[in-house]
Amino acid sequence: MGNSKEYIFTLEIAVRDYELDSEGIVNNAVYLHYLEHTRHAFVKQEGIPFGSLTSDGLVPVVRRMEIDYYTPLRTGDVMLSRLWIERKGPRFIFYQDIFNRDGGELVVSAVVTIVCMENGRINRGDDLAARIAKYLDRP
Amino acid sequence: MGNSKEYIFTLEIAVRDYELDSEGIVNNAVYLHYLEHTRHAFVKQEGIPFGSLTSDGLVPVVRRMEIDYYTPLRTGDVMLSRLWIERKGPRFIFYQDIFNRDGGELVVSAVVTIVCMENGRINRGDDLAARIAKYLDRP
Amino acid sequence: MGNSKEYIFTLEIAVRDYELDSEGIVNNAVYLHYLEHTRHAFVKQEGIPFGSLTSDGLVPVVRRMEIDYYTPLRTGDVMLSRLWIERKGPRFIFYQDIFNRDGGELVVSAVVTIVCMENGRINRGDDLAARIAKYLDRP
Amino acid sequence: MGNSKEYIFTLEIAVRDYELDSEGIVNNAVYLHYLEHTRHAFVKQEGIPFGSLTSDGLVPVVRRMEIDYYTPLRTGDVMLSRLWIERKGPRFIFYQDIFNRDGGELVVSAVVTIVCMENGRINRGDDLAARIAKYLDRP
Repeated sequence: MGNSKEYIFTLEIAVRDYELDSEGIVNNAVYLHYLEHTRHAFVKQEGIPFGSLTSDGLVPVVRRMEIDYYTPLRTGDVMLSRLWIERKGPRFIFYQDIFNRDGGELVVSAVVTIVCMENGRINRGDDLAARIAKYLDRP
Repeated sequence: MGNSKEYIFTLEIAVRDYELDSEGIVNNAVYLHYLEHTRHAFVKQEGIPFGSLTSDGLVPVVRRMEIDYYTPLRTGDVMLSRLWIERKGPRFIFYQDIFNRDGGELVVSAVVTIVCMENGRINRGDDLAARIAKYLDRP
Repeated sequence: MGNSKEYIFTLEIAVRDYELDSEGIVNNAVYLHYLEHTRHAFVKQEGIPFGSLTSDGLVPVVRRMEIDYYTPLRTGDVMLSRLWIERKGPRFIFYQDIFNRDGGELVVSAVVTIVCMENGRINRGDDLAARIAKYLDRP
Repeated sequence: MGNSKEYIFTLEIAVRDYELDSEGIVNNAVYLHYLEHTRHAFVKQEGIPFGSLTSDGLVPVVRRMEIDYYTPLRTGDVMLSRLWIERKGPRFIFYQDIFNRDGGELVVSAVVTIVCMENGRINRGDDLAARIAKYLDRP
């Protein structure tokens, strides 16, 4: 369960009560917000402020998302949202797992495929790869 | 592209401007809302009001979601959100495609796995299957 | 109760289940989305597409919101969202009421103050006023 | 500007990028989420877990909200969300101000009226008042 390789980034996020649905658990769509927030926090840490890629005319977009839901988050929960990355040609694959910080349970496990668009076409992604090279070249 | 079998339900949904993100396109998490809204509208049409399953102690939950993003929706767009279903043991697989109503382009294509939980355990799903039998027994 | 003058615009909006909170009623923040969606639908009807004001460098922004909550909306409800407008110098006051379409009850009643910003300063609002003059000159 | 009395609670909240709208600023409805999240964090700190009031059959609901918008929040911003309280008969008035942590600017200033419902009727609020008495009896 979860994505096995070594994580390169971890973000702690607290559940906010308005993210709960009428069954008292975090709504399934909200996890995509957590995952996106984690990716943005990661690229910011790398000195790539949100929007800087777009100022070059490059827009990173989500092409595919696979997400398995294991244990729901509830009011008061705090999560650890972790990721590692792989490049496959123009595609950047983010392996993202969210754990309950206190219990340690796996909450969701996701594989998110990102590509960079430039003027409506898929870009080769070399610019983005150069900026995060150290995370891609791991054995 | 898209899920090929014959659709059994179609819902028309209009984009609301607050669903756009800072790039002017519908945020990727919002599509999960559209997909959920479509499933709920479908089960209501079948006479299963939202919450009735839960009043039996049965709670349908999303276990897995795969979603491919093709063409983003923008302000003013109206979508056709369509689905068909398959049962695999306790799992109900919703094949859900969203099209741009006016241009006809495929927007997203999703495969959503639902199971019914009962007192914290996965239920065999026979109750739900009985209620939507006519959609499951297609050749 | 409600804003008494004659309404100039009505939009029908259906509640979507993901808008419910853990108490089974529409979350109080979601009504601001409904109100914004209604204002946007109104200006579009007047031939002012979303974003066109901003292409002139003019950005309409909300400066103040007063909202009274009367009867909550629940799953399956459909609302009638209505408005009328008044201009007070640079401020455009939107009087917005939402009713339950079927029961007729007043759901929320809001007074929303909008100003147009231009390069970070409040604009006199003459452009916007000209475009919606027929709604402002009522006796 | 802002609500002048002494604050009794402060919560630090970071903007998440998906809360930005297509103009790159936090959408006006999202501030109601921040304000609600702050109230919940406050009552939890007081030993009133979210939902405990409701287990007594008491449901706190928002009856009225007034909110002035001053300076918008943007990507990367962190806010300080502060409040103090007053009781007026059955109504609990939350005075809530949000400041930009780094620049210090006032972001929004809100006055939120809460009442406790019990079986569909407004409760006198004595239970809630007893639990937060030390914040209400200030000279």
